[in-house]
Amino acid sequence: MIEHGIQLDHLREERLGFDEAVYAEGKSVEQIAALIVHGVESRARRLFTRLDREKYQALGAPERAALDYDPVSRTGILGEQRAPSTDSRIAVITGGSSDVAVSGEAKRTLEYYGKSCAHIPDVGVAGIWRLLARMEELRRMRVVIVVAGMEGALPSVVAGLVPGVVIALPTSVGYGVAEGGRAALTSALASCAPGLVTVNIDNGYGAACAALRMLRL
Amino acid sequence: MIEHGIQLDHLREERLGFDEAVYAEGKSVEQIAALIVHGVESRARRLFTRLDREKYQALGAPERAALDYDPVSRTGILGEQRAPSTDSRIAVITGGSSDVAVSGEAKRTLEYYGKSCAHIPDVGVAGIWRLLARMEELRRMRVVIVVAGMEGALPSVVAGLVPGVVIALPTSVGYGVAEGGRAALTSALASCAPGLVTVNIDNGYGAACAALRMLRL
Amino acid sequence: MIEHGIQLDHLREERLGFDEAVYAEGKSVEQIAALIVHGVESRARRLFTRLDREKYQALGAPERAALDYDPVSRTGILGEQRAPSTDSRIAVITGGSSDVAVSGEAKRTLEYYGKSCAHIPDVGVAGIWRLLARMEELRRMRVVIVVAGMEGALPSVVAGLVPGVVIALPTSVGYGVAEGGRAALTSALASCAPGLVTVNIDNGYGAACAALRMLRL
Amino acid sequence: MIEHGIQLDHLREERLGFDEAVYAEGKSVEQIAALIVHGVESRARRLFTRLDREKYQALGAPERAALDYDPVSRTGILGEQRAPSTDSRIAVITGGSSDVAVSGEAKRTLEYYGKSCAHIPDVGVAGIWRLLARMEELRRMRVVIVVAGMEGALPSVVAGLVPGVVIALPTSVGYGVAEGGRAALTSALASCAPGLVTVNIDNGYGAACAALRMLRL
Amino acid sequence: MIEHGIQLDHLREERLGFDEAVYAEGKSVEQIAALIVHGVESRARRLFTRLDREKYQALGAPERAALDYDPVSRTGILGEQRAPSTDSRIAVITGGSSDVAVSGEAKRTLEYYGKSCAHIPDVGVAGIWRLLARMEELRRMRVVIVVAGMEGALPSVVAGLVPGVVIALPTSVGYGVAEGGRAALTSALASCAPGLVTVNIDNGYGAACAALRMLRL
Amino acid sequence: MIEHGIQLDHLREERLGFDEAVYAEGKSVEQIAALIVHGVESRARRLFTRLDREKYQALGAPERAALDYDPVSRTGILGEQRAPSTDSRIAVITGGSSDVAVSGEAKRTLEYYGKSCAHIPDVGVAGIWRLLARMEELRRMRVVIVVAGMEGALPSVVAGLVPGVVIALPTSVGYGVAEGGRAALTSALASCAPGLVTVNIDNGYGAACAALRMLRL
Amino acid sequence: MIEHGIQLDHLREERLGFDEAVYAEGKSVEQIAALIVHGVESRARRLFTRLDREKYQALGAPERAALDYDPVSRTGILGEQRAPSTDSRIAVITGGSSDVAVSGEAKRTLEYYGKSCAHIPDVGVAGIWRLLARMEELRRMRVVIVVAGMEGALPSVVAGLVPGVVIALPTSVGYGVAEGGRAALTSALASCAPGLVTVNIDNGYGAACAALRMLRL
Amino acid sequence: MIEHGIQLDHLREERLGFDEAVYAEGKSVEQIAALIVHGVESRARRLFTRLDREKYQALGAPERAALDYDPVSRTGILGEQRAPSTDSRIAVITGGSSDVAVSGEAKRTLEYYGKSCAHIPDVGVAGIWRLLARMEELRRMRVVIVVAGMEGALPSVVAGLVPGVVIALPTSVGYGVAEGGRAALTSALASCAPGLVTVNIDNGYGAACAALRMLRL
Repeated sequence: MIEHGIQLDHLREERLGFDEAVYAEGKSVEQIAALIVHGVESRARRLFTRLDREKYQALGAPERAALDYDPVSRTGILGEQRAPSTDSRIAVITGGSSDVAVSGEAKRTLEYYGKSCAHIPDVGVAGIWRLLARMEELRRMRVVIVVAGMEGALPSVVAGLVPGVVIALPTSVGYGVAEGGRAALTSALASCAPGLVTVNIDNGYGAACAALRMLRL
Repeated sequence: MIEHGIQLDHLREERLGFDEAVYAEGKSVEQIAALIVHGVESRARRLFTRLDREKYQALGAPERAALDYDPVSRTGILGEQRAPSTDSRIAVITGGSSDVAVSGEAKRTLEYYGKSCAHIPDVGVAGIWRLLARMEELRRMRVVIVVAGMEGALPSVVAGLVPGVVIALPTSVGYGVAEGGRAALTSALASCAPGLVTVNIDNGYGAACAALRMLRL
Repeated sequence: MIEHGIQLDHLREERLGFDEAVYAEGKSVEQIAALIVHGVESRARRLFTRLDREKYQALGAPERAALDYDPVSRTGILGEQRAPSTDSRIAVITGGSSDVAVSGEAKRTLEYYGKSCAHIPDVGVAGIWRLLARMEELRRMRVVIVVAGMEGALPSVVAGLVPGVVIALPTSVGYGVAEGGRAALTSALASCAPGLVTVNIDNGYGAACAALRMLRL
Repeated sequence: MIEHGIQLDHLREERLGFDEAVYAEGKSVEQIAALIVHGVESRARRLFTRLDREKYQALGAPERAALDYDPVSRTGILGEQRAPSTDSRIAVITGGSSDVAVSGEAKRTLEYYGKSCAHIPDVGVAGIWRLLARMEELRRMRVVIVVAGMEGALPSVVAGLVPGVVIALPTSVGYGVAEGGRAALTSALASCAPGLVTVNIDNGYGAACAALRMLRL
Repeated sequence: MIEHGIQLDHLREERLGFDEAVYAEGKSVEQIAALIVHGVESRARRLFTRLDREKYQALGAPERAALDYDPVSRTGILGEQRAPSTDSRIAVITGGSSDVAVSGEAKRTLEYYGKSCAHIPDVGVAGIWRLLARMEELRRMRVVIVVAGMEGALPSVVAGLVPGVVIALPTSVGYGVAEGGRAALTSALASCAPGLVTVNIDNGYGAACAALRMLRL
Repeated sequence: MIEHGIQLDHLREERLGFDEAVYAEGKSVEQIAALIVHGVESRARRLFTRLDREKYQALGAPERAALDYDPVSRTGILGEQRAPSTDSRIAVITGGSSDVAVSGEAKRTLEYYGKSCAHIPDVGVAGIWRLLARMEELRRMRVVIVVAGMEGALPSVVAGLVPGVVIALPTSVGYGVAEGGRAALTSALASCAPGLVTVNIDNGYGAACAALRMLRL
Repeated sequence: MIEHGIQLDHLREERLGFDEAVYAEGKSVEQIAALIVHGVESRARRLFTRLDREKYQALGAPERAALDYDPVSRTGILGEQRAPSTDSRIAVITGGSSDVAVSGEAKRTLEYYGKSCAHIPDVGVAGIWRLLARMEELRRMRVVIVVAGMEGALPSVVAGLVPGVVIALPTSVGYGVAEGGRAALTSALASCAPGLVTVNIDNGYGAACAALRMLRL
Repeated sequence: MIEHGIQLDHLREERLGFDEAVYAEGKSVEQIAALIVHGVESRARRLFTRLDREKYQALGAPERAALDYDPVSRTGILGEQRAPSTDSRIAVITGGSSDVAVSGEAKRTLEYYGKSCAHIPDVGVAGIWRLLARMEELRRMRVVIVVAGMEGALPSVVAGLVPGVVIALPTSVGYGVAEGGRAALTSALASCAPGLVTVNIDNGYGAACAALRMLRL
């Protein structure tokens, strides 16, 4: 891979328990194709994130075929898919239907590592009864990932209601003071709910990895 | 008052229905004393805000006696107090006991204009059942002022539950990303709850004046 | 709607007196079409905001026909239009002709709920006599929504002249320090005019909903 | 407690598994004294945070005696102390000796809930061999809390080396661009290390509560 | 002066038409005393700014006597005072009585250079009729310096009403979003009024120097 | 013009000595065409700013012909051009060849009002000898407008060398910390050079209007 | 060149030891073509930066042929290329494969001035063993340029391990709090590693020039 | 030292060529005393930075005597002082006499490592002839550290005039937009002068260490 300016990290799986994921945003189509071919040849499994539809479609047919690609979450999975466990007790909640790209990245990362999750969409604080109606289910979860851009209060409310681990995953959906996800991030960090933790805006991959570290405990 | 660099605004009451309030923060003890003496002599009513205890105690005894002073809200009222109406249907909610200085400024401003209000303290989102338990009472209110520094999600949650006017009043209580009230302000502005309005951080006087404009409707 | 990742909020009308509005910005054409079809079938009224012309034109002919669409304000109204009341005494003022998209969103939201409003365009502070000439009319209003991006001083000036409720609605029109509406928002929040309230930048829907809550008083 | 403007949250323990902690920063000596007396009378355990030495010393002798007070971490513990578990496998790492107030708040919160922790001080990135020398020990931990103000790179480096859960706890120690902890917070959120999570600047209590939620899994 | 780490700029008067002013904020009492003694000995005139009362009072009696000191504006003038011209047609307007320290620095700088100015205090936008009542006078001015911290709209309004040069001089008076003068500065820069210019927050000396450059034209 | 949502300000010329300029950025082609037609019919002179090439080319042939259009500065002038005075003693300096759009807007505004100016391009601080070589010429100027995006130090250096009025005109050219012109604006405001004044980023029109106000003195 | 609004700086080479580089971002194709032609005619060597592929391809064939163009780093070199020295002992390290545009600009600038450099790609902190494996090589370097957008901790780690000069070169690659390179810049400036220096985000040219100044020592 | 929560870094000298410096700001008097005693006993040399006068005077007499303390730069040196080299060709320039605390920290750090430096005070851009008069001297320097808070343009001007390495050292002296040194830092980073490098605000120690790394080349 050196000729493509890429140095793979073979030790990451051993050290951290994670394969090296490929963040496709700044990479060329040629680099991504080379990574797929290398993965196929070495029978490696590999997760691609931030791979947008245009770049995916610019790949050759064999590379496209090798990849289990999902355009909404902009993720591609190379290699055999593990059967997801059915009792993971992880939930992914979204505040609005616009947050689905980011929640999808988290969900696909969990699936790549063999964990299924419950998905509870569109339960924003502006109509909090929708959330309260799901509370019994949520209180049984071990980890709840709360995905919210314009519904910045949601992680705080959830973390005040459930005893499991709550991970705030702010999204860049929003306008005005909420532009780029700053309001959602700030709300999560400033929350009074004891023990709420946060990852970077739009970092669905990171939120899922955090959940995976926790589930190993 | 010109010799003290102050020009009173006699038309404000006629134009806006508000007396000119005295923001004491940047004023000297001499200026404040002159304003009290002038008010006593002209039999004017007047509200002083941001008058801290040290400055109050540095006034002469007659000036101190002329003022109905409250150290928590740092407000002083000059002139006869009107009997508060008993059916204003205004509530002031606070997220934490640290927000009481700001909620006090709002409450005292309302009282200065003859309006009583219900005060519901310490009902933060981290224990949302405390808020839900008061919901019937809150849903009957015409205006709810939600005072919150560290509980930035509170105005959003309230505005999603009650049909009356909800005014977010962020406070400068907080640390880290919440320092100076920025997180609370941002949360209020970014809220998805339809029709939530906001005033500046710590502006208890402004929130009360907004409520008063609304009650005239 | 669940297959489209959308969970409608049937209780919002009952709880808050508002129908659930559809924020179209992050939604796909398919999701919007499904919401229109569902609305037509269930004879529901529904307001769509931030629905830009490209997305509207990508809808099928029946969906387009079902919607009363306005490209300037980027709003669509589904279902029968109520006859607007003629005595609402609400005014919408704009500082410049560039603010019309945002003022239009406020105006259309009011109309959706059966309220007409007076529209006073292009009365910025740089030529304040245009505003002063309309003062008698403005002083009779119950609610004045002041829409301003580059004319950040306007809400403050209006709130210092009229006794009714004044809602600042900053817009993202502007450049340099005014880029994205931050200068207009800051000016509104920092204003000394007693009782001025503010909503998020470009939130015409929110300003109208605030006015509607106030008019119920 | 109502006469002190405080409403205790008796349901929090049941719902979340946490007692209500008392954030002492904005509270008066009278309020804190009342909370201690109330706690003693009702035989409640209670954790006080951000209780600085001046305020502690202004308490009456019985209140001071009732509290197990630590001036460095500014925490006080009321009620019987539980014997800490000896196999918690939690580590608290600090980047510099100036971060000890914040790491102390985390450590005391863990102890309040009966968890001991390993404390590894002063292992900043500027001399990374100190960290590498402790790696075997750290790789056995279930949760590592990394406390860093001026050593913003530390959480990232640790999360790239250990498989357990890593919680970044930025501190407000620093100057210039690092003032108030912003650089440390940003570094933690922006980290490429998979699964690093973050809490607010100086929020030692929050980091500990997050660890406690995780240990329940 | 070299032994005090100070190198005087003898060419400034010749090049720019301004003497070197002494910004006292970061200087020690010893440095300031040496500058006074040096000035007295060399029969130089000199303006000291940001010289607070504590530092002034720490000077020796001869140094204090040599200085014409004004504690409100924190300025000291060394050397003979020129008789101010009486027809300068400069006005200094302040939005609130808290802005007087900054307007005083501008006024004293003008006087040091032999220019008198009209001072119009306390004419904020919240009661705009006070400003309109002075309009004839203001329209005759060649330069109007508008000093405003909390009344950020004032420079914009004035520049929309008068044909002379208008200099916005924001002050650091304010709280919340207005803290440190940022709101006032932003409002002035973002103004639509044609030809409004701005100086740094609290820079009364700079605003006066700008006026002096203009008056030479 | 009312049918186009535009209300012209006929009093501005009388009050301020400026015609109303048309800021074309947020306006539609239809609005601009209507303004041109109205101007032609009423024999009015009018300046259009921020009129980009695409919008200009979308106008009809008669409207295009009526306008003296310059694509670099994005300005259009309607009506007879006045012969520029030849002794204005105004200079416009640019730090880099990328700043020419903004300096052009200033230059064209001056020309619209009959003032010529000297244009000194590309004299950045990184090669300060280019600036020093022009110093005699610059020291004779009454007003110097210094246009700089990446050369933020330039206004400060010029204002330290010439006795005339110096107006800093920051531009949005730049990257990294200079993105959007913030570094250039901050440098100008923070300058120690006595009497430097500033306008908003990219506000060539405003800088020229300020110069025009000054030249009337 | 004056007819293209460009004034070349012939003294820069003599004064600073650098030729004037051409920052192509804000320049038109005509200006760039003229600079190439002028360079060819005067047999000058010249470095073009930020010359993107579209602009390069819009040049005429002779101009394209005259330029040694590299699309990844967006640089073009005019004139004979010097044989690079082989013992420069400069390394350029990148944190991720997305940082290659910026590291390329640094590398090409060094080559323009006849210096080769070792390039060590893709050695982020998230897998720090890759960096540690290269440590012996790095410790022999005189200057190490560390290019990092998302791997903000990398410059700090390197500067804590090697005795040579370390220059942090932050890149604008990143999202959320890292957007535009701010997190990487802040991390570099806030680093505790003694003697780490920094240049602006994406300023590969500047980092290389700094290295060149150092190598002359 | 472990009982004081401090772990000394004995390898730093070997790895980086720097002793571990003691940043005294967040440390208690007891910790500092212990570090002095430990240093005296182990005959170690050690540099203390940010040791303010109050903390120094609170030390015991033997500890005070062991330290060569300078109150202006807030530095203390423990152990024998090396005779400074006389031909270092390093200059430290300050923009104003208020920057002397920071320039002193740089100067003392250089002296601790046996390097003398030329100190050129008070040569701000507002009177650039003072700088130009010293140019021959400055052009002979290998490294120039430019210390500036309010004179943010100074590093840029110097780096455009001298061929040696120029290190910008911004200081937190300033007000308004320059508060805390942000304007000076931004100006240095945004500079067009080729090869200017920067350290954190007030980081005199870091600037000196950078110079030391360079002098080893």
